[in-house]
Amino acid sequence: MEHHDNKEGVAILRKERNLWVVGGDLRQVKLAELLMDDGHWVQTYAMERRPSPPELPGSDTLRGIEHADCVILPLPVTVEEGILNTPLSDQKLPLKTLMEALQPGQMVCAGRVTTELKALAQKRGVTLCDYFAREELAIKNAVPTVEGAIQIAMEELPTTLFGTRVLVIGYGRLGKLLAHRLKGLGARVTVSARRYDDLAWIEAYGCWSEHTEQLDGWLGGYQLIINTVPAVVLDGARLHDLDEGTLVIDLASRPGGVDLEAAARLGVKVIWALSLPGKVAPVTAGAAIRDTIYHMWQEMEQ
Amino acid sequence: MEHHDNKEGVAILRKERNLWVVGGDLRQVKLAELLMDDGHWVQTYAMERRPSPPELPGSDTLRGIEHADCVILPLPVTVEEGILNTPLSDQKLPLKTLMEALQPGQMVCAGRVTTELKALAQKRGVTLCDYFAREELAIKNAVPTVEGAIQIAMEELPTTLFGTRVLVIGYGRLGKLLAHRLKGLGARVTVSARRYDDLAWIEAYGCWSEHTEQLDGWLGGYQLIINTVPAVVLDGARLHDLDEGTLVIDLASRPGGVDLEAAARLGVKVIWALSLPGKVAPVTAGAAIRDTIYHMWQEMEQ
Amino acid sequence: MEHHDNKEGVAILRKERNLWVVGGDLRQVKLAELLMDDGHWVQTYAMERRPSPPELPGSDTLRGIEHADCVILPLPVTVEEGILNTPLSDQKLPLKTLMEALQPGQMVCAGRVTTELKALAQKRGVTLCDYFAREELAIKNAVPTVEGAIQIAMEELPTTLFGTRVLVIGYGRLGKLLAHRLKGLGARVTVSARRYDDLAWIEAYGCWSEHTEQLDGWLGGYQLIINTVPAVVLDGARLHDLDEGTLVIDLASRPGGVDLEAAARLGVKVIWALSLPGKVAPVTAGAAIRDTIYHMWQEMEQ
Amino acid sequence: MEHHDNKEGVAILRKERNLWVVGGDLRQVKLAELLMDDGHWVQTYAMERRPSPPELPGSDTLRGIEHADCVILPLPVTVEEGILNTPLSDQKLPLKTLMEALQPGQMVCAGRVTTELKALAQKRGVTLCDYFAREELAIKNAVPTVEGAIQIAMEELPTTLFGTRVLVIGYGRLGKLLAHRLKGLGARVTVSARRYDDLAWIEAYGCWSEHTEQLDGWLGGYQLIINTVPAVVLDGARLHDLDEGTLVIDLASRPGGVDLEAAARLGVKVIWALSLPGKVAPVTAGAAIRDTIYHMWQEMEQ
Repeated sequence: MEHHDNKEGVAILRKERNLWVVGGDLRQVKLAELLMDDGHWVQTYAMERRPSPPELPGSDTLRGIEHADCVILPLPVTVEEGILNTPLSDQKLPLKTLMEALQPGQMVCAGRVTTELKALAQKRGVTLCDYFAREELAIKNAVPTVEGAIQIAMEELPTTLFGTRVLVIGYGRLGKLLAHRLKGLGARVTVSARRYDDLAWIEAYGCWSEHTEQLDGWLGGYQLIINTVPAVVLDGARLHDLDEGTLVIDLASRPGGVDLEAAARLGVKVIWALSLPGKVAPVTAGAAIRDTIYHMWQEMEQ
Repeated sequence: MEHHDNKEGVAILRKERNLWVVGGDLRQVKLAELLMDDGHWVQTYAMERRPSPPELPGSDTLRGIEHADCVILPLPVTVEEGILNTPLSDQKLPLKTLMEALQPGQMVCAGRVTTELKALAQKRGVTLCDYFAREELAIKNAVPTVEGAIQIAMEELPTTLFGTRVLVIGYGRLGKLLAHRLKGLGARVTVSARRYDDLAWIEAYGCWSEHTEQLDGWLGGYQLIINTVPAVVLDGARLHDLDEGTLVIDLASRPGGVDLEAAARLGVKVIWALSLPGKVAPVTAGAAIRDTIYHMWQEMEQ
Repeated sequence: MEHHDNKEGVAILRKERNLWVVGGDLRQVKLAELLMDDGHWVQTYAMERRPSPPELPGSDTLRGIEHADCVILPLPVTVEEGILNTPLSDQKLPLKTLMEALQPGQMVCAGRVTTELKALAQKRGVTLCDYFAREELAIKNAVPTVEGAIQIAMEELPTTLFGTRVLVIGYGRLGKLLAHRLKGLGARVTVSARRYDDLAWIEAYGCWSEHTEQLDGWLGGYQLIINTVPAVVLDGARLHDLDEGTLVIDLASRPGGVDLEAAARLGVKVIWALSLPGKVAPVTAGAAIRDTIYHMWQEMEQ
Repeated sequence: MEHHDNKEGVAILRKERNLWVVGGDLRQVKLAELLMDDGHWVQTYAMERRPSPPELPGSDTLRGIEHADCVILPLPVTVEEGILNTPLSDQKLPLKTLMEALQPGQMVCAGRVTTELKALAQKRGVTLCDYFAREELAIKNAVPTVEGAIQIAMEELPTTLFGTRVLVIGYGRLGKLLAHRLKGLGARVTVSARRYDDLAWIEAYGCWSEHTEQLDGWLGGYQLIINTVPAVVLDGARLHDLDEGTLVIDLASRPGGVDLEAAARLGVKVIWALSLPGKVAPVTAGAAIRDTIYHMWQEMEQ
């Protein structure tokens, strides 16, 4: 649950800020709303096709952004070279244009900052912070990712997750939380990892453990396999071992953890689920960014 | 989890039976498949539009049903007076026709047996058992119902269930399992009940408790309310107290627990979710019927 | 956890009462302290050897008891016929003497009321309530009983409870909570019960289930067995099946659930643990009585 | 739970080894028994006052140790400079004597290896492995440590842990498992840590979080505080803030995390609990060493 008390939140709210939220998807919209709820003065730009809470202000121009205490850019900040990521806008906003609208000394927070943006910011004299580089955001993002994966499994499986034999591959952030939540729903959870200390943790938290390297020949018997490792763990040979009807959910970012061609050939259903936080729980995902930005501000002021 | 050992299952399987599964939805299809997997000789009828595992035999006529050790009818056995419930068939099979195809002394298992069917069975000298009348099936059905409700909540809420404030109204079968599973996902769960012993149980299992009769004025602060009580608990006055954006899921059978007109007027989103087991987890639901029928047979043979 | 808000508590506290707590063990002492904390005027009698929080008043005589709004007697109210149960006092207080010190119309709350006390109360015109007869107190008492049993198991076993195979016999109040708490500690829990609906509940809460009547020959493999059934479930034949070193904890009230002679002969360690709440958690046990008495008052005033 | 299958165990057991277990407390005794159970040939030395399973062989001399495939020394291997740690023996065995009884090339496994022992081993040409240096053993040891701390809390508190407000200081191995197990028992758990990523984990696992550096003034309201940080976190000023009756359990190794003088002055009850695994669960602790040694052998043979 969130912080027991709001000491830090209170301290931050004491100072009302002028914030611009520029670009991004639904979670940036929710982020803007949450910042407004906390008493900040918020302006948005380049999200004009957002669903309509009319209270949230939206600007047609960048005029005024030079007075912002902080400009908040999306996660990821860009998907096309040189252009801001603005799925809720029809315009294409070059990063260069955006940077030039700012004053030297202004603060910009963005997610997955690129070398290009870094260079632009440095040239302009703008302080650039990458909130996605902070481990805490990665953990907070794992919460909706994991719940999204569970939702998909519920939608796809003809059985309940309760009582289902699940193999989670990998014991990083996603693997840890998947194990916890799936157990909470009554699934029978095995987690595979490579390191003996991870195997000790898996067991200490009450799951069964398997060596990832020794999975060959032991992949039968699961009704659901969720991969979290960004390497082709489920190649053709291993997919061949799966029981008929086993569902595979791949949470690994590109290139993914499953040989999709082999899966298609073998008739294994694979769902490659990316970017779940913004899709399944934009409010939670927006709040995660907000909390992380607050912590960054707090550390800067110390 | 299921039985630690399979003493009883083994005993039952020793005797391979001739079974007819007649009518019903996807869970009856799955039930037929599961019975086949256990080594019984299975015939189906009146589910010809089922999805296609071609191994499952299907008959065009009732010929041969007079040799069945047990005829298994759907849950509910009928939705239109005098007619078998056959959503996966184009034909209308009168219960009378079906009964007349049977021999005196044959066994029929059905769910939610009606007075009419009872009379027909008695007249024909057929032994009729209602598997839905057994408490164990109601509990086993609560498992997929509850998971279905959680799936709906995940799909509808813009936040994760993790960290969400949920009120569960009622502490019967559904309320008990909802509390357990929602806590397992990290929701903050309050359950309301009327009796002090139920309140004591709710607290002993680590949830917050509220008196259902004292809910007036205390319904704010929840992001999700799940009703399980078959009486209009959420009337206009109470719906008025909800926070904006609270999602209401009603699991109560007809007439339901929410004043839907008032909800529409107030802009409260209500999802009235019925018959979830067959929809979200037909295999689990079919297995629940199978286990219950096995236990009935076992008791008869003792 | 306790009630989300204190609506009812507030209502009750609005009326400060004159209360006498007479006799009993440490939990009655704690009960008296808790009642004082809630703002009542409390007097105690017949617990003069209690440990010393000096703030708690103690009377040398029964003088003044006739003004009490409620007189609270211990649980159990008597262990020797006709005499109040006063383990913390050197005197013997006949129930008759106590009743004669009261006025007709006064209220007395006691635990496990005997026929004798009922007759005395009726004769004197006193309103007598048995708080132990309320299911809610039995549930609230199960909480410390179960935790006490777990404490004993931790003290006695040379292994952690985590990972230990435990059989809980019986699925009443104690069995339900034992299963929940032991699972919370990471034990591998099997629960035995007789009824199919209980078996369905055991499985729905994620434990393994066994038929109590089919335990013969299946008692090996457990490191800990906790009996909650008040009948000799563990007779010589079954004790013979236990693995060497299996610990048995019997929570069943007299005559207990274990053939102690056979156990001694076979070298099976059995701990028969009675009256745990007052021993392991007197404050929790006192609070349980307080809450129950509050609810009784509340219902009387409605 | 332990490994799903015993692939690795099987591989190791295929090769029966000649093992000497020399010195140590009850967990080394249990370790020797467990190694015997796995089919190895086991000899013990310098634990002659051990409790009596007579099957376990014990030698009066070191003769024959030169044929051992592996010599297993205790954890910690020494508490007095130059002398083996032999709490279950009356003799004092110098490390030097022990090393000289070995042949060059033999393998020795010991816990918390000292510089002195390293030098002796190198001089003798013996392969020395420190099983305590492996993270997996530290995790496996945390399991009984945490359960021991819970046992102490149950013994000392006049309430149940269920419903009790607990503060765990530190989120390393002990903090992580304490949070998990205490929640499993129904305690209300707050964990304090310094790093924002740890705070994010604490919340993601469903506990409340506090900044360790911001605890000043926020230590009231807890009935139990368990410290795991090896630094004086609970100094006089902080102890002063505790509620009357708060129990403090300190799991930090020397110099401990509590100002004991201040605690004595303020009347705060502090239990400084060290070396819990060997005390509360010697079998579990012995099994942890066994598994770790197996993994070391396995890696050597790869």
